[in-house]
Amino acid sequence: MRDLDSQETYLADRMGLAFELRDLVGSGPVPQAAYAPPYGVVGYGEAWWAARLARDWIGAEFTERGTQFVLEGGYDLGQALSAGLYAGAGAEVVRLGYREEVEVQVAAHPLSPYRYLRFLLLATGQRAELERVDRALLLERERLRPEVGLDKNPAKFLAYSLLERTPLWVVPERYAGLAQAMQQTYARIGKSLSITPPPSGLEFFLTGLEARHEQGDPIAAVLLGDDERKRVSQEILESRVDTLIELPEPEAEGTLAKALCYWYRVAWASYYVALLYGVEPGDWEVLERLREAT
Amino acid sequence: MRDLDSQETYLADRMGLAFELRDLVGSGPVPQAAYAPPYGVVGYGEAWWAARLARDWIGAEFTERGTQFVLEGGYDLGQALSAGLYAGAGAEVVRLGYREEVEVQVAAHPLSPYRYLRFLLLATGQRAELERVDRALLLERERLRPEVGLDKNPAKFLAYSLLERTPLWVVPERYAGLAQAMQQTYARIGKSLSITPPPSGLEFFLTGLEARHEQGDPIAAVLLGDDERKRVSQEILESRVDTLIELPEPEAEGTLAKALCYWYRVAWASYYVALLYGVEPGDWEVLERLREAT
Repeated sequence: MRDLDSQETYLADRMGLAFELRDLVGSGPVPQAAYAPPYGVVGYGEAWWAARLARDWIGAEFTERGTQFVLEGGYDLGQALSAGLYAGAGAEVVRLGYREEVEVQVAAHPLSPYRYLRFLLLATGQRAELERVDRALLLERERLRPEVGLDKNPAKFLAYSLLERTPLWVVPERYAGLAQAMQQTYARIGKSLSITPPPSGLEFFLTGLEARHEQGDPIAAVLLGDDERKRVSQEILESRVDTLIELPEPEAEGTLAKALCYWYRVAWASYYVALLYGVEPGDWEVLERLREAT
Repeated sequence: MRDLDSQETYLADRMGLAFELRDLVGSGPVPQAAYAPPYGVVGYGEAWWAARLARDWIGAEFTERGTQFVLEGGYDLGQALSAGLYAGAGAEVVRLGYREEVEVQVAAHPLSPYRYLRFLLLATGQRAELERVDRALLLERERLRPEVGLDKNPAKFLAYSLLERTPLWVVPERYAGLAQAMQQTYARIGKSLSITPPPSGLEFFLTGLEARHEQGDPIAAVLLGDDERKRVSQEILESRVDTLIELPEPEAEGTLAKALCYWYRVAWASYYVALLYGVEPGDWEVLERLREAT
C-alpha cells in the first residue's frame, strides 16, 4: 500500500492540486463594484452547491430587480444561458463562470465551489460570514496538509479508511446539499463513486441493508456531527456496514463555516484517496472535452 | 436462478404485496370536506416525494391562511410534529399519517407515496390531474403484473437486469425528486442499495468512473426518457458501466403522470428483484420498530 507520509506518493500529483488546496482561502475573483439588492441566484455544474448555500441569505432564485447572479459552473447543456431570461427586466444579470462572455471569470476547477461562494458573500455584503468561513478553513488546513503525518492528520486517516470501500455520506439535514457536494468532490478529485441517501435516510439505511447483508460489505458510512439522526443512523448502520467513520463538528462558527470545513476535509481526503490509488487527483483532459460538448 | 414466471417464486411474497401493487390505483383516503386555499404542504419520511411533487401546484411549504397540509410519513424524529407551528395562525392544519392523532389516516406502507399524492390532488381541486395519473398507472399495470410473462413484462426484464448489480438512476431534471424516490422504493421493496447522482450528473459520471474502471463493473445505469442530458450520459456511461438499461417515456399525459408511471414500474421491478433474491418484498418487522423509535 502507498504511504501518504512518503514523498514518492506525491509524484502522482503532476498538476499540483496540493498547492491549490493549501492556498484555497482567499482565492478567486472579488467584486469590482457594488451590486444593488434585491438578489437572485441560480447555479449550475460546479456552482450548484454555492447557489444552494446562498439560498440561506439570498431568498430567491430569480429577482425582478436589483441583481441576478447566474453561476455558470458548466455541464448544463445551455440551461445557464437561458437562466438570465427568467430574471426581471429591472435586474442586472451578472454571470460568473469560465466562458468568455461572462462578467466575472471563475476558472473551471475542482475547488471552484468555494470561489463562487466567496464572490457571492462579498458581492452581497456578507463579509463577516466569509471571515468566519475563512478562519475555520485556515484552522482545518493546518491539520490536513501533506506535511502533517498520518497520526495527526484526519484527512489522511479518512483516506485510508475509505480505500477499496464505497462511502455512504450521512449528513445532518441543516447542511443543505452537503452530502451531494461531498459525493461530487469525492468523484472529481478522488476519482471514486459514493452514495448519498434519499430524504428519508433512516428508512433507506434499514430497508436497503436489512435483508441482504453482503451489500454492506464494501460500504464505509461517514457520519457527520452528533445530532439524534446521526445517533439513530449509527445504531442502524453499525451492524450492517463494513466500517463506520465519525466526523465530529469542526471548530467553526455557524452552519455555513462548518459545512465548508466538512467539504474542505473531504476535498483533502479525496486528494489522498487519489494518491493511494496512484491516479492524478487533478482534472483529466476528458473533462475539458465534456465542458466543451455541454 | 429463480424463475419469475413460475408460481413457486411468489411464495416469498407472504404479505401479498403483489395484490397491493395491482390494486394501487384508487387506494387510500379521500377528502371528506373541502379545504380552503391557499395551501401549504410539507412532507416527511414516506411522504417527502408527494410533498415535493405537490410543490408544482402548491407553491409554498407553509401558508399563513387557508390549509396547511403536514404529511407525517414517519422516521422524522419529531420534525413533523413541530411543522404545524410554522403555519400561520389563520391556517387550518391537516395532518396525514399513521399516528393516531392525525386528521387523515394513511397507513405506513411502501406504496403510500401514491396515496399521499392522491389525497393532495383531490383535496386541492386537481381531480383531472389525478385522472391522468390513474389512467396511465392502469395502463402500466396491464404490462407489469405477475401474470404477464417475462417476454412481455418490462418490470420482470428490468429486475433480471438489476440482479447482482447496483442501479445508478439517471433521470431528466424535470422529474423533481424521482431519482431519490426510486432509490427509496428500490431499498424499501427490493431490499437493495442504489445510487443517485449529485446535481451536476454529467461531471459526476465522468470523473467518478474515468480513472478506476473496475468501479463500473457492478453498476447498471438506468436511463430514463430521451433528452439531450440522457444522450450525453449514455455516451459517458456506455463504456464505463457493466450494463445500460433505457426506460423510454411512458404512455402518459403530463410530467406528473409520467413520473408516477416510472416510479410504479420501479416498484414492480423492486418487487421482482426481492423475489429473485428470495426475500420478502413487504415490510419487515424491524421497520415498525424504527417508526416507533423515531
